[in-house]
Amino acid sequence: MSDQPHIQSFQPPHRTLMGPGPSDVHQRVLDAMARPTVGHLDPAFVGMMEELKTLLRYAFQTNNDLTFPVSGPGSVGMETCFVNLVEPGDKVIVCRNGVFGGRMVENVKRCGGVPVLVDDAWGSAVDSGKLEDALKANPDAKVVAFVHAETSTGAQSDAKTLVEIAHRHGCLTIVDAVTSLGGTPLKVDEWEVDAIYSGSQKCLSCTPGLSPVSFSARAIETVKNRKTVVQSWFMDLNLVLGYWSAATKRTYHHTAPINALYGLHESLVMLQNEGLENSWNRHAHNYQALKAGFDAMGLKFFVQEDQRLPQLNAICIPEGIDDAEVRRRLLQDYNLEIGVGLGDMAGKIWRLGLMGYSSRPENVLLALRALDEVLTDMKAPIQSGRAVVAANGFYDAK
Amino acid sequence: MSDQPHIQSFQPPHRTLMGPGPSDVHQRVLDAMARPTVGHLDPAFVGMMEELKTLLRYAFQTNNDLTFPVSGPGSVGMETCFVNLVEPGDKVIVCRNGVFGGRMVENVKRCGGVPVLVDDAWGSAVDSGKLEDALKANPDAKVVAFVHAETSTGAQSDAKTLVEIAHRHGCLTIVDAVTSLGGTPLKVDEWEVDAIYSGSQKCLSCTPGLSPVSFSARAIETVKNRKTVVQSWFMDLNLVLGYWSAATKRTYHHTAPINALYGLHESLVMLQNEGLENSWNRHAHNYQALKAGFDAMGLKFFVQEDQRLPQLNAICIPEGIDDAEVRRRLLQDYNLEIGVGLGDMAGKIWRLGLMGYSSRPENVLLALRALDEVLTDMKAPIQSGRAVVAANGFYDAK
Repeated sequence: MSDQPHIQSFQPPHRTLMGPGPSDVHQRVLDAMARPTVGHLDPAFVGMMEELKTLLRYAFQTNNDLTFPVSGPGSVGMETCFVNLVEPGDKVIVCRNGVFGGRMVENVKRCGGVPVLVDDAWGSAVDSGKLEDALKANPDAKVVAFVHAETSTGAQSDAKTLVEIAHRHGCLTIVDAVTSLGGTPLKVDEWEVDAIYSGSQKCLSCTPGLSPVSFSARAIETVKNRKTVVQSWFMDLNLVLGYWSAATKRTYHHTAPINALYGLHESLVMLQNEGLENSWNRHAHNYQALKAGFDAMGLKFFVQEDQRLPQLNAICIPEGIDDAEVRRRLLQDYNLEIGVGLGDMAGKIWRLGLMGYSSRPENVLLALRALDEVLTDMKAPIQSGRAVVAANGFYDAK
Repeated sequence: MSDQPHIQSFQPPHRTLMGPGPSDVHQRVLDAMARPTVGHLDPAFVGMMEELKTLLRYAFQTNNDLTFPVSGPGSVGMETCFVNLVEPGDKVIVCRNGVFGGRMVENVKRCGGVPVLVDDAWGSAVDSGKLEDALKANPDAKVVAFVHAETSTGAQSDAKTLVEIAHRHGCLTIVDAVTSLGGTPLKVDEWEVDAIYSGSQKCLSCTPGLSPVSFSARAIETVKNRKTVVQSWFMDLNLVLGYWSAATKRTYHHTAPINALYGLHESLVMLQNEGLENSWNRHAHNYQALKAGFDAMGLKFFVQEDQRLPQLNAICIPEGIDDAEVRRRLLQDYNLEIGVGLGDMAGKIWRLGLMGYSSRPENVLLALRALDEVLTDMKAPIQSGRAVVAANGFYDAK
């Protein structure tokens, strides 16, 4: 026998989560996850699955029948879209303006597809003119894929226009809404998005591990008419449908992550009770307060104002300031987590999330106060002592 | 705006889970899942990941460095093994004696591999002689895959011998240990298993949604020397390693399912505290009590005695008895879930799990009493009133 370890139960610290996700999880959601586990074919559970689909349809603003949470993180939601809609040899136009567009390219290649890149600078929105040009140059393209809300930079693209252009050229659309769902306007049916995926741990403020997806009738038709079998057994929508669809007798596909789904259900009930538009407005409102604070402090945003996501704010790190040291102090002295820059942006930006339950005044004020104090102590070139006053002024004026 | 639904928070019923998984989850595990969410790169969380790996190594009885929980259900663990170890054109011998062997065949095909089947009847163990013959007939085979504990029938195969034969013929081995890990002897290093996957919701008694896996140095070498890229981005071990390996600076791959991992950690701490051998013995002990009860009742086991898994018992449904009605009454009148037969076994067997926290005397006695009462009421040809007495007699004698 291998030696028995001597490990204690894990007691996580209490953090305030203002990175790019996970966001703060409400106690109601945590409590829901601790409810007794039932079987994945239990009639009570099956009823909850139907409610989950209804709640997700509301969040996505869609009537798509095939709307459900994939039993895996957002990356599995992404891969589910690509492996089902892309067949070997298919040409896919990928708009890339950050890390997650890059991941889409990887997915296309691994499906045997042929990616065509429409590149924009990190921190910029996708340029619709470039997409139009790429489509004209590639009349045989089958799919256009882009990220609605780039989690790596906080840039928001005009999803409605990009889908419209793609459709005008006869292409299906795959949209990454990991960071947008619930936090900023997203209208799957009105915009006619074909395939979309998100994550549970961003503006829905559930714990990580689930990926809500939705597919239009046109996307399902494409999956059903594939010439080749879907390369992933787990992600094959033809099989998943048998478990998540109410239309057929429910058949076993895989064992659903029961308690995680309790959590997602609760977070969506909370979104429903708040109202989707109210949630969008709340995210915009707290962003304005954060912005007032950063402006007063003299910190610069990485993304230009009209392309910014209110729920994810990339801030330029002041010159000469040690990125890691600031984050270490925030975590140690304030129990505050903020996000690092990814790839080329490492050491250049911080990413401050105001997503879901994290989007509230006390978080805005904590982040401003903590950054003000730490940066002042580190002698950064900022206007000390003004940020919290400015944010409070914003809140008071409303 | 689409209409706002009016859905209430979900309150699941309290069930006793004696199907093929999920099994009963201890309150300690549920409580752990409700602890505050932290970030997936938080130093506190990273420390817990290291502990999780240590605990899993103990459960698997291995020193394999690459031992971690995949962020998805057991089917994703299975697919992770196949997409990494099988390249297009590779010949894979799959031993099939139930549903999950069949799913392995699907995986091989979707990786572009060439499956060679070694078929045994459902309910029987894999015949090692047949595997030897298949290997002689296919000297170019690269991998042998089999299920240690067939969840669809409750048959246990001799993993040690099957791996030994495969290695003698120069093949790597992929082993399904979804239902065996923690419940019945499993010794990854001693048996020299190359790739193995399990599930969190069986004998570990965590909630569903995670798949512990372990890979030998030889398996990792094979992955590193692939000629083709792994077809799945999410499951590519070359990428996953960057997040789960302590050797390198931890890089972001995907957002880990934080709270689900808290739960798995706690369930593994409980297994560690009980001791692995004690857990195996407990599973065997409660099986003996269940067997005493079923023997006294006159119900027959589907699998012959020396091939039975103590933690998953397939029972033949008495002739003329309405399968669905029995299960409906058990659920409604006793809050007791037992499992159905899959595929050809539907309506012919029930599957009674005594896995993890479900493997305890009160569950054995509840199941015997409930089945006795329901079957007696439905006038089944059984020896009424004897089962509980027999099981109690067994417990008292020990």
